[in-house]
Amino acid sequence: MPATGSPVLPPVTLVLGGARSGKSAHAEALVTAAGAGLYLATAEARDAEMAARIRAHRERRGDAWTTVEEPLEVADALARHADPARTILLDCLTLWLSNLMEAGRDADAETDGFVAALAGLAGPVVVVSNEVGLGVVPDNAAARAFVDAAGRLNQAVAGAADRVVFMAAGLPTVLKEVRA
Amino acid sequence: MPATGSPVLPPVTLVLGGARSGKSAHAEALVTAAGAGLYLATAEARDAEMAARIRAHRERRGDAWTTVEEPLEVADALARHADPARTILLDCLTLWLSNLMEAGRDADAETDGFVAALAGLAGPVVVVSNEVGLGVVPDNAAARAFVDAAGRLNQAVAGAADRVVFMAAGLPTVLKEVRA
Amino acid sequence: MPATGSPVLPPVTLVLGGARSGKSAHAEALVTAAGAGLYLATAEARDAEMAARIRAHRERRGDAWTTVEEPLEVADALARHADPARTILLDCLTLWLSNLMEAGRDADAETDGFVAALAGLAGPVVVVSNEVGLGVVPDNAAARAFVDAAGRLNQAVAGAADRVVFMAAGLPTVLKEVRA
Repeated sequence: MPATGSPVLPPVTLVLGGARSGKSAHAEALVTAAGAGLYLATAEARDAEMAARIRAHRERRGDAWTTVEEPLEVADALARHADPARTILLDCLTLWLSNLMEAGRDADAETDGFVAALAGLAGPVVVVSNEVGLGVVPDNAAARAFVDAAGRLNQAVAGAADRVVFMAAGLPTVLKEVRA
Repeated sequence: MPATGSPVLPPVTLVLGGARSGKSAHAEALVTAAGAGLYLATAEARDAEMAARIRAHRERRGDAWTTVEEPLEVADALARHADPARTILLDCLTLWLSNLMEAGRDADAETDGFVAALAGLAGPVVVVSNEVGLGVVPDNAAARAFVDAAGRLNQAVAGAADRVVFMAAGLPTVLKEVRA
Repeated sequence: MPATGSPVLPPVTLVLGGARSGKSAHAEALVTAAGAGLYLATAEARDAEMAARIRAHRERRGDAWTTVEEPLEVADALARHADPARTILLDCLTLWLSNLMEAGRDADAETDGFVAALAGLAGPVVVVSNEVGLGVVPDNAAARAFVDAAGRLNQAVAGAADRVVFMAAGLPTVLKEVRA
């Protein structure tokens, strides 16, 4: 339970940004300032590079966090773990999308299901996602399909979020803020 | 003619953003709120993927819009169709640039001509363009040349525009606003 | 020494943006408005494309600037040339990083040394850097390592800067401003 005077997070916060923009660190700081956190990881340590990234994130968070890994059934995991006394940090949405597309799942249907799940959660969630559409159009069709699906997913989640923060060089800019 | 009380668009609006950032939907909403619209498309349906994108955009706009297709002579088309009682939505600038470069035209000269045309239009225009320079530098020279030309074009049009809006995850941020 | 009434730059300004976003022109305008400038270039004219870019930048600046080229020992060069009566324009940070990585240097250690050097400079500096992390994740490991290192470097310099400006289509947005 947050201490008296600690900042209260809205139901849904989206932290959006590029690679190495400080998204995860900012999201972790938001959750830590508000009280207890559960880390819902969509990453799987399938190679050494990925394992090193996961380890670095885990070391930064320290032992105060509960960690749950769920590469695919993320909407279910959110519903199952949501708790008014603890904030879920979902890191990250674009990796989940990548897992879905690799598994042959329908990205649009999953996006709809995820946004529907966000509406009825029992506790706050901070969602981290990558912006990937600001470079040149990729010359392979699979990468273009990923950029399209990620853009639709980010738009849908931003539409459902109470607060959207864009990160660049570790600096947050608020793109959306719904007053309670 | 816009109904009494509907928002009045400035002479030139630029809606800039990444792939799937909600640029076209935002631009369409601006035009619709202001009154009647003419859709000036630079896209040509040369393959199935492109045809599907064009169809999706057309279905979203509905039947109230007039559509004109012009892949190359865009400055002329703007001048010909400009009308104080109807807003032109030009979608999009970077695809026009891509058409120009494929046709061997001089991108800098075309940029200058386009900006000159914007200054004297008889009615308002909303221009949609892609930001493509925020990823890694492409490793082929043609893609680098495109990024350079698109950046120069976006800078020139932003300089001439009365309002510039940056889209991310469907959310607009105003980068420039010239008060009348 | 700046004329009476000319704007005073803070000790460290970071101008961040994509390719062809108007970063260098904006940084040059800041320096020129504040008084005399020294251009600290990290670029080397190793091919015709690069030589043309360097020439174009040099022509835009004109003869009033002193130019120093330093591809690797940038922290030393900053310390050596810092002067309260003249602003250094360092253009650009990501090219320095690229030079470092090509030379097999440790990017994290160099980042730490650079940020340490920024803290004690005898005069103001305006640092130009590229944001490269907002496109699709590159499919080769070297490019991913560059994106990671550039993101860490930009975060570290932004953390140490008094003012951070993000450029898009030639338009500045202030991301950070520390009041004196």
